[in-house]
Amino acid sequence: MAVKLSGNACVGQSGGPTAVINQSLVGVIEAARRHKKQIKSLLGAVHGTKGIMAEEFIDLFCIPQTRLEKIAVTPAAALGSVRHKPKDDECAAMLAVFKKRDVRFFFYIGGDDSARAAQTIACMAAKSHYDLCIIHVPKTIDNNLMESDHTPGFGSAARYVANAVRGDELDNRSLPGVKVNVIMGRDAGWLTAASMLARRKDGDGPHLIYLPEMPFLPEKFLEDVKGVYARHKRCLACVSEGIRDADEKLWAETAGKRLYDGLKDDSKNLLGKPRKDVFGHYQLSGTGVLADFLTGLISNNTDISRVRGDTYGYPQRSFPGFASKVDAREARQVGRHAVKCAAKALGGSVAIRRRPGRAYKSYLALVALELVAGKNRKVPKEHICPGASDICPSFRDYALPLVTDLPETDTLD
Amino acid sequence: MAVKLSGNACVGQSGGPTAVINQSLVGVIEAARRHKKQIKSLLGAVHGTKGIMAEEFIDLFCIPQTRLEKIAVTPAAALGSVRHKPKDDECAAMLAVFKKRDVRFFFYIGGDDSARAAQTIACMAAKSHYDLCIIHVPKTIDNNLMESDHTPGFGSAARYVANAVRGDELDNRSLPGVKVNVIMGRDAGWLTAASMLARRKDGDGPHLIYLPEMPFLPEKFLEDVKGVYARHKRCLACVSEGIRDADEKLWAETAGKRLYDGLKDDSKNLLGKPRKDVFGHYQLSGTGVLADFLTGLISNNTDISRVRGDTYGYPQRSFPGFASKVDAREARQVGRHAVKCAAKALGGSVAIRRRPGRAYKSYLALVALELVAGKNRKVPKEHICPGASDICPSFRDYALPLVTDLPETDTLD
Repeated sequence: MAVKLSGNACVGQSGGPTAVINQSLVGVIEAARRHKKQIKSLLGAVHGTKGIMAEEFIDLFCIPQTRLEKIAVTPAAALGSVRHKPKDDECAAMLAVFKKRDVRFFFYIGGDDSARAAQTIACMAAKSHYDLCIIHVPKTIDNNLMESDHTPGFGSAARYVANAVRGDELDNRSLPGVKVNVIMGRDAGWLTAASMLARRKDGDGPHLIYLPEMPFLPEKFLEDVKGVYARHKRCLACVSEGIRDADEKLWAETAGKRLYDGLKDDSKNLLGKPRKDVFGHYQLSGTGVLADFLTGLISNNTDISRVRGDTYGYPQRSFPGFASKVDAREARQVGRHAVKCAAKALGGSVAIRRRPGRAYKSYLALVALELVAGKNRKVPKEHICPGASDICPSFRDYALPLVTDLPETDTLD
Repeated sequence: MAVKLSGNACVGQSGGPTAVINQSLVGVIEAARRHKKQIKSLLGAVHGTKGIMAEEFIDLFCIPQTRLEKIAVTPAAALGSVRHKPKDDECAAMLAVFKKRDVRFFFYIGGDDSARAAQTIACMAAKSHYDLCIIHVPKTIDNNLMESDHTPGFGSAARYVANAVRGDELDNRSLPGVKVNVIMGRDAGWLTAASMLARRKDGDGPHLIYLPEMPFLPEKFLEDVKGVYARHKRCLACVSEGIRDADEKLWAETAGKRLYDGLKDDSKNLLGKPRKDVFGHYQLSGTGVLADFLTGLISNNTDISRVRGDTYGYPQRSFPGFASKVDAREARQVGRHAVKCAAKALGGSVAIRRRPGRAYKSYLALVALELVAGKNRKVPKEHICPGASDICPSFRDYALPLVTDLPETDTLD
């Protein structure tokens, strides 16, 4: 597209919530208001693609700035989110709505699945020669978008995880035993790796960290735990919900299925049947089955009496008032940048890049949707220690600037 | 005891950590330093009663105030905690250590089990005519100590829970479905009741709240969930880990045993065998079994597709940097008060009381150990709504002053 577009705009939110997804929404609203010559109105799609199809919109230009500032610091999608993989006929239906309402700009805030939906609509618009500028605004606590140094939402989730694990480390010192924490991140271990930021000095937990990037071997895990316990008389392990076996099969799925299949027929109703979501993803969040499997493994194969497991769950992505300042600021900038690009009729996916040098500085780029859509960026091997049960100190340099300050704590020893 | 004592002092921490237990420790240290005429030295017992028996002590008078201030804001027991019910011979051994080291003051920071241990040692000292002033310094996120309006640790845990549930409410609005949160509190529902503070307006979750104080009937729970879901197209339920059936049997225990017993013999090793701790308490924390049982119940008996469960776990008691200001201040005062009482040779348990009137004000009292030891203070029935699936607005007046401010959030509807 070479010529500047003018017409209405639409913005939607998609996928799992984050602590700063509304910063990006507010960034889009603010910047769109500054481009009123081109952007006549801004429609907020209620529950993403679902709202577009149902023509359920909120007029976002009429919301006062004071209210927007409160929305910005509120976790979870203020417009409502959606987990839905739009089919071709649904994309066609959305395009028809856009045409009917003269929508020329579409901002879709989400992860790699949302980028794919955006790409599908973009292709369809191009085919029907309808000028529509689509910008994918990145968002995911998983930090797994290609072409980015990191993604909005990650820094805040990592801050929650680092702080919760710090608390768990203090708790575990206080009442020694084995503690296993299962941390979010289906396809990449970024968030679990951030648990290493909880360490303050030698001997501090987490003592063991396992990511989906390396095969998880239960026998080795058991030996690792025994080794740490022998050395420290306690052990704090952080495990990604996405850990896989050597065949790339999710352990959470294996554990859930084994448990379900291991039940006698008249006891099957004690557990919900293991199931997959609309994307064919096996349900990992909102169940304690992986942590219970791992603590059972330790309890059944050692004589350690105190073994506990926590599945960190939704507070990782939606705990209010604990966002990273850098993450909040960047999430806002990403939303504004999307509008600036759209005003120049540039479509694609916004990416955060990091400038080289000791002091942390970032800048924004716009990349082609197909480089991001449906793709997964893993934690590079150089951050993973040999033995695959720990994270290298290099990861601290990467992650700490994104997490910013953590509450100060001290110990008596 | 009428005469003032002089000699050495000992302080220990016991039971589950809290976010402010070290405020009380620092309160004891500060106040003891101001009574150096009577208190010659202050021994910090490492891991409570275990440290006393092993004579593992830290000299607490030598720690500079700047360091103490950092310790004070650090969650979990800085001296190390213990879950141990001392037997008579162990109490005798501790008394022997106290005699040997001329310990005349013993401050034990803990819950109702710790008060009982303190009482046993106090009785033994009295029998052997050894002048020993014992003060139980209250601490428990469970808020279940008799004679108190509330206990140090509760306000901060309630602040975490209210905020996490607020985030979950926003998350659940964003991606509608049924969400069940299991919240700590074995014998009393105070902390689970605090989830009601997450509500901002009509229709906000939590929509359902269940406490151990009322029998939990799975069939009724299912009907409650279906009713809320029919009305709001979503449902957020908060359930205490301590919910019981009509025979007072813990549902977590029943669920864990049913699941374990329901496994075929060759699959038993998939779960750790359900077990009890030293107090004969069935393990509730550190397992996701109750949440999985409740979500399974909903999944298997409704056609609701999105059903998730979280077990809030240890961050409730040990998340750094999120303590309630009132709770932190009172925890410190309680520690100081214990020393003031001891200096006057008054033994017992410190209790926080509330002054009547609209503005929140508290004061401290000293009560007999036997009024607190091993006892449990339940949530009064007047705070529980008819139907036993919600908490009355009166609870907000009780709990909000203890939790203090919560992060501001806003929604678009």
